[in-house]
Amino acid sequence: MSKKVVIVGGVGGGMSAATRLRRLDESATITVFEKGPYAGYANCGIPYALGKVIKDDEALVLHTPKYFKEYFNIDVHLNTEVVEIDRTNEQVCTQTVGEAEIQRVGYDKLILSQGAEAVHPQIVGADQSHVVTLRTISDLQAIRSIMVERCVRDVCIIGGGFISLEAAENLRKMKFGVSIVEQWTHILPSIDADIAQFLHTELKRNGVKLYLNDTARRIETSHVVLASNGREIPAELVILAAGVRARTSLAKMASLEVGTQGVKVESHMETSDEDIYAVGDMVETKHIIQQQPRVVALGGPANRQGRLAADDIAGRPVHYRGNIGTIICQVFDLTVGLAGLSVSALRELGQEPLWVTVHPPHHAGYYPNAHPITIKTAFEKGTGRILGVQAVGMAGVDKRIDVLATAMQARMTVFDLEHLELSYAPPYGSAKDPVNMVGFVSSNLLRGDYQIVHAEDINIKNLHTWQVVDVRSPEEFATGHLPGAINLPIATLRGQTLGLDQSMPILVYCYVGYRGYLAYRILSQRGFSVVNLDGGLKTVVEGGTKF
Amino acid sequence: MSKKVVIVGGVGGGMSAATRLRRLDESATITVFEKGPYAGYANCGIPYALGKVIKDDEALVLHTPKYFKEYFNIDVHLNTEVVEIDRTNEQVCTQTVGEAEIQRVGYDKLILSQGAEAVHPQIVGADQSHVVTLRTISDLQAIRSIMVERCVRDVCIIGGGFISLEAAENLRKMKFGVSIVEQWTHILPSIDADIAQFLHTELKRNGVKLYLNDTARRIETSHVVLASNGREIPAELVILAAGVRARTSLAKMASLEVGTQGVKVESHMETSDEDIYAVGDMVETKHIIQQQPRVVALGGPANRQGRLAADDIAGRPVHYRGNIGTIICQVFDLTVGLAGLSVSALRELGQEPLWVTVHPPHHAGYYPNAHPITIKTAFEKGTGRILGVQAVGMAGVDKRIDVLATAMQARMTVFDLEHLELSYAPPYGSAKDPVNMVGFVSSNLLRGDYQIVHAEDINIKNLHTWQVVDVRSPEEFATGHLPGAINLPIATLRGQTLGLDQSMPILVYCYVGYRGYLAYRILSQRGFSVVNLDGGLKTVVEGGTKF
Repeated sequence: MSKKVVIVGGVGGGMSAATRLRRLDESATITVFEKGPYAGYANCGIPYALGKVIKDDEALVLHTPKYFKEYFNIDVHLNTEVVEIDRTNEQVCTQTVGEAEIQRVGYDKLILSQGAEAVHPQIVGADQSHVVTLRTISDLQAIRSIMVERCVRDVCIIGGGFISLEAAENLRKMKFGVSIVEQWTHILPSIDADIAQFLHTELKRNGVKLYLNDTARRIETSHVVLASNGREIPAELVILAAGVRARTSLAKMASLEVGTQGVKVESHMETSDEDIYAVGDMVETKHIIQQQPRVVALGGPANRQGRLAADDIAGRPVHYRGNIGTIICQVFDLTVGLAGLSVSALRELGQEPLWVTVHPPHHAGYYPNAHPITIKTAFEKGTGRILGVQAVGMAGVDKRIDVLATAMQARMTVFDLEHLELSYAPPYGSAKDPVNMVGFVSSNLLRGDYQIVHAEDINIKNLHTWQVVDVRSPEEFATGHLPGAINLPIATLRGQTLGLDQSMPILVYCYVGYRGYLAYRILSQRGFSVVNLDGGLKTVVEGGTKF
Repeated sequence: MSKKVVIVGGVGGGMSAATRLRRLDESATITVFEKGPYAGYANCGIPYALGKVIKDDEALVLHTPKYFKEYFNIDVHLNTEVVEIDRTNEQVCTQTVGEAEIQRVGYDKLILSQGAEAVHPQIVGADQSHVVTLRTISDLQAIRSIMVERCVRDVCIIGGGFISLEAAENLRKMKFGVSIVEQWTHILPSIDADIAQFLHTELKRNGVKLYLNDTARRIETSHVVLASNGREIPAELVILAAGVRARTSLAKMASLEVGTQGVKVESHMETSDEDIYAVGDMVETKHIIQQQPRVVALGGPANRQGRLAADDIAGRPVHYRGNIGTIICQVFDLTVGLAGLSVSALRELGQEPLWVTVHPPHHAGYYPNAHPITIKTAFEKGTGRILGVQAVGMAGVDKRIDVLATAMQARMTVFDLEHLELSYAPPYGSAKDPVNMVGFVSSNLLRGDYQIVHAEDINIKNLHTWQVVDVRSPEEFATGHLPGAINLPIATLRGQTLGLDQSMPILVYCYVGYRGYLAYRILSQRGFSVVNLDGGLKTVVEGGTKF
């Protein structure tokens, strides 16, 4: 007898499950219910369709129900919502838009892939028609209508997550005035403040107005009123991008186990009902670093989970390994990426990670257009296990994030990064790739070859506890330096150590950390107590440390 | 007592050793002898300096002896050759250019980092002044002089390795006529013929004339005469790029153990004399895939080996893990990369690897300017251990090579690639990254979910043994197809299987392999014996299979 499989949700995880299952089993009856007007569309492309980088919305609709029927013999029902799961009779109740009638459809196996929905912050006036989200093709079309109808000149985006940043970039390219209101002290709360600071600079450079540590008190027809000071931000269009939340109401109604963030699943993507699977943005899965279940609302994991659910239904042995949360985002000319957890996220979990910051060029420095990549790497004391990597720069960021994400998933340590043999030709990398540099610097720290102090731990009040030594050239020193620093260039340092006080600790620094490290090695071998400023003055200046 | 360390060779490995040792030991006496006029220069940049992509030769000279003295207290002697090693007295004999006198310098530890030298093929006329190599800044300067003096219009490059290709690209950008003579049947013998074929096409598209499977019989003042047919190739300048050979004569003279390719070293980079180390292009190290010692003449390994030699001298525990030979090269608008071994190289070692070919877009297909990457992945039967990866394409090749190189060094299998969580946003990748695709296709093969036939195994004589089924659309079919193929588009295949003969095996194919795979699954579940053409018609056409 052929298996009846019903799938709720026709994007990402749902369609991955459907097509994979068909490839494994020609005889199954596979039915997909999608409550929206499109199935198998590329929601990650929506901000770029808004900005006409993707010229035609049709390009987002990767496949139609006709395609799924012809290629896969899968029945996709659009505009059809599953409103109830009758677990006792193994049936779902569906309702098509514009029809009152409820249909009952039986299943042997059910896969939920309902995704996440935008969080709607409680703001007075958020129910107006010019206040929208940016998640679906329908949202996109709504925004375009509002732009025309309201002669939109300025857009205010509530929330500073990835979609917010992609939307901001695309709207600025269309010449709209753009402001972002973010309740946290920096955008992208999943990354650290110092890395976010690079993005703040880039956003401002491109004319995006940032209102951080603030919220919208109310939304008027022509502006948004800030909670902090009542300031009015012009906006004929308001985009709510204040995060997403797993769609769990259907699962809850069916009494499936739901955790604090999403539907609970086992490693073969089964819910608490062994005939019901759940995948994608609506489920909690093991975070490999965090070692706790959490929702990771990303396309890659959703697709893989869908595939695994199908494998399990087809009788294949499967095991979902969990996620590390590998993220990448374009922010105008910069790229920012994260794999694993930020230092602040690790601290919130009660961990005390070590971390280092490096700024190597993305390819050979002697080859034209080498751009620095700032890489901040958190790792475990003692073992050197990599816990989180953040990177920002103009080029080559995605490569290093993916290499480091692979290393993390292979359970590599920072010591392993020293040995990694990566490709090198002048247009692509360096004989010592930025990933190797992360390995060298981290391993040096773990082996006790040097000590560091982080930008966040120095301030105008404690700098006097060190002899602060700037080892750059006099020309560089003259362009600005830490308060109270003396200038002992590395080139002449060996001859000048007599002028330093053996009884007082020294803080050395240069611009990116390398010469500071050389100075550390020279001074410490002469008996001084030294710390090097991690990531150098660049981390202080561009990371936004205040003095 | 301070250690006296002498280093022979002031590029890559030698200077990495010298500077690392200084950081670890302020008291050591470190002396470097470099027989050329520069130390610490970027030889990998030389082809790009030739083409003025790197505008100033000075940019290649990363550091001067003054820098090494000031920053590292290292004495670098340029134009000074070490002509003999007196192991009994632990001394080297040095001779400076233009001086008759031999100096003797004692050492406690000696590091050889002499690199490789260009192979000079035995060609009549190769001793003329317009016949040069392209390894050093001096070579570069010689070439520039010849260009002016001889009013060079055409350049012939003997050999088709990486430097040859980089030189060809740069010379074409300078509007020279360029031809390459390669004795093998394809350029880059370390990669497979089908991958090389992509490069042949790109070279020809850019006006480079290729003479493959041929050698130069003799070099005249205005042309090169081919051995095959006596054809005269115009060339007022001839560049010998027929490979490199480890410089082992000094080591041999000192009776250090030398293998078939280079100086033998232990995993801490010691030679057969425990006070003498050797690193870089002159040594044989363990190839992780090959499991035999071989020379890997690459900048990355040279630098790492130098660092390890210094660590060992400083009393640190070290272990060189070996290489996989990660290589990348720009060839006009294409990038080609290799990690591990090609299929042909594996076969030469007596192995019978499995392999698959995929052509996924380098980022989301719906985002503008998505370019296919062709990835050919060899792996072990049963275990799925990754043995070699080759990739070619216009963008994103270096990222996938580095991710896969990392996976190989982590001893991952193709099954692990299915699970890799890599970064995805439309400008950077896909929810199913090309690396995941490699994992899916390889794992499907290993699990027996489909069978493939390779382009190299089909030909006009054996095609009739299959029912050849082209599952593309009629429009695609009309643009060209395999001889004798019938067209059963995937969209209607399920309804058309009655027309196929159950008793005869079927060969299905599409353009890149995906629809062929779908067809395989449909047909095999209906009881047909099927194979899918690996990599589809694209592999046949662009990989150069002849019909």
